[in-house]
Amino acid sequence: MKGWHKRGMKHIAAFVALALLAASLDAEEPAKPTPSEIVAAAPLADWTAIAPSDLLIMDLAPDAAAKPRRVVIQLMPAPFSQGWIGNIRKLAAAQWWDGTSVNRVQDNYVVQWGDASERKALPQGLTVVAESEYEVRDGKDRPSQPRLEASIARFFRWFADGFIADFPVARWSSPHGISAHPVHCYGMVGVGRDMPPNTGTGAELYTVIGHAPRHLDRNIALVGRVIEGIEHLSSLPRGTGALGFYETAEERVPIRSIRLASEMETDKPLPTYEYLSTESASFSAYADARANRRDPFFIRPAGGADICNIPVPVRRAK
Amino acid sequence: MKGWHKRGMKHIAAFVALALLAASLDAEEPAKPTPSEIVAAAPLADWTAIAPSDLLIMDLAPDAAAKPRRVVIQLMPAPFSQGWIGNIRKLAAAQWWDGTSVNRVQDNYVVQWGDASERKALPQGLTVVAESEYEVRDGKDRPSQPRLEASIARFFRWFADGFIADFPVARWSSPHGISAHPVHCYGMVGVGRDMPPNTGTGAELYTVIGHAPRHLDRNIALVGRVIEGIEHLSSLPRGTGALGFYETAEERVPIRSIRLASEMETDKPLPTYEYLSTESASFSAYADARANRRDPFFIRPAGGADICNIPVPVRRAK
Repeated sequence: MKGWHKRGMKHIAAFVALALLAASLDAEEPAKPTPSEIVAAAPLADWTAIAPSDLLIMDLAPDAAAKPRRVVIQLMPAPFSQGWIGNIRKLAAAQWWDGTSVNRVQDNYVVQWGDASERKALPQGLTVVAESEYEVRDGKDRPSQPRLEASIARFFRWFADGFIADFPVARWSSPHGISAHPVHCYGMVGVGRDMPPNTGTGAELYTVIGHAPRHLDRNIALVGRVIEGIEHLSSLPRGTGALGFYETAEERVPIRSIRLASEMETDKPLPTYEYLSTESASFSAYADARANRRDPFFIRPAGGADICNIPVPVRRAK
Repeated sequence: MKGWHKRGMKHIAAFVALALLAASLDAEEPAKPTPSEIVAAAPLADWTAIAPSDLLIMDLAPDAAAKPRRVVIQLMPAPFSQGWIGNIRKLAAAQWWDGTSVNRVQDNYVVQWGDASERKALPQGLTVVAESEYEVRDGKDRPSQPRLEASIARFFRWFADGFIADFPVARWSSPHGISAHPVHCYGMVGVGRDMPPNTGTGAELYTVIGHAPRHLDRNIALVGRVIEGIEHLSSLPRGTGALGFYETAEERVPIRSIRLASEMETDKPLPTYEYLSTESASFSAYADARANRRDPFFIRPAGGADICNIPVPVRRAK
């Protein structure tokens, strides 16, 4: 994890320490395992279960070959975006998305879904969330959230970027303390909104299907990430209207239902999922291998990776 | 263009200067145009024509609705990758790709095409290119290439990253001088290869359809970028085999032909293309707006953008 990170003026000293570390890592070493080999060899203790109550299951209409299309989204843990996530839980419980559609597919940017008519009444009791909730401050003017700083610090203590649970976050220092916000990496799910100060409700959602659009960070709420089935969204035909919106109703992809996994009625049990703990030794080795490939295909380690090039491994639990 | 760039130890002083610039830009200002509004307003003089001899036209078989699928690739200018690009010109002239196919679509990574049988004989006279050609050195041990340093320096003179013509490049300093290499941004086209020291011929090609896989930089040759029609590749069904390879011949997408635009026989003239000159004032304003959105939708400018988030605008010439 050297270089290649957004950082503020406060991080210059840290960067120097890091560059020295890089120099030592750049010495010749024998070939090493690939990132996926490291993940495959991780002991069971290095995996963390994802609660079914944090999984949002989106079933699209089957494709042209009648194959089912299921997308599994993990909702983000506290302290991030909990106002919007509470709304999303209410919308799922109200079966609000049933019969809505995927309406926008913009190449190298986002896939967006929700109510194409923009007239469907929302459930009662949704929260209006403030723009200040796009980030989390952990400082003098806010009760300390030790988990925030401690868990970022543990792995990426020299860096501006890190992880909370399996979510990518950026952080920076200010006179008020540490601030952090989730990052728009590939597969992250966010909340569409109107012009500010509107912050969106959570009824209109999108996921990133291209190079990380970091300019959206702290401008739009992020609420989760796709952990399975993103190909059902990323391989959809691109919309030909402005911003990649589909121009006709026929192009839209119907959404059959969106439910929390913990609230779904199913004949057989749903799969459960686990992620490679970002504080584990296995993850540390995996992240280093992503940043510095030394397996036989590679002739030069990169000497760094941006946080969106270190996706946290997720798998179905056995 | 502040922060968010890969850089070496030599760039720390430059970074400080940059951070001060950032502070002044972060003061409140009136709303500004979007990046696309800046591009639309750019004067004709800020656009540079792309020679038809630098365009590779790939025609896939029509899609299920019988719609044509054409992908236009711009080949990279000197001093980069000219050995492989020479081979690609020969392969196109020999009509070598006709009847080959797209064989691999890996989500958030690459689409790859070439001869699925791996047995098709190559044309005579292809060059075997050395690994040293993955980058360009412009220093004491090599005749100076003033255009390399001058053109990177002009726009991104404080940074590790910049552009040559409309291609993203990274550079770094060493005791031997300046080195530079093209960057694996979305849409860039590279040369598949076997294990090192094999460097590939140019017959097996791929394009990036996800977050920039920078670990491939300096490990694989880059030869161009897709400037039109990438959606015909990025929206293909993902392969279900290892590395996203299609598992059956039926899944592969037939390639009808790949030709240089200057060598195509056509009934009506092909479109011509032009890019927004990266040394123009318009591009500078565009890049600043990509890094610091101040149009009304945004509440906080990012304070930086990585080079892959500043794709160089290309359009059909009128």
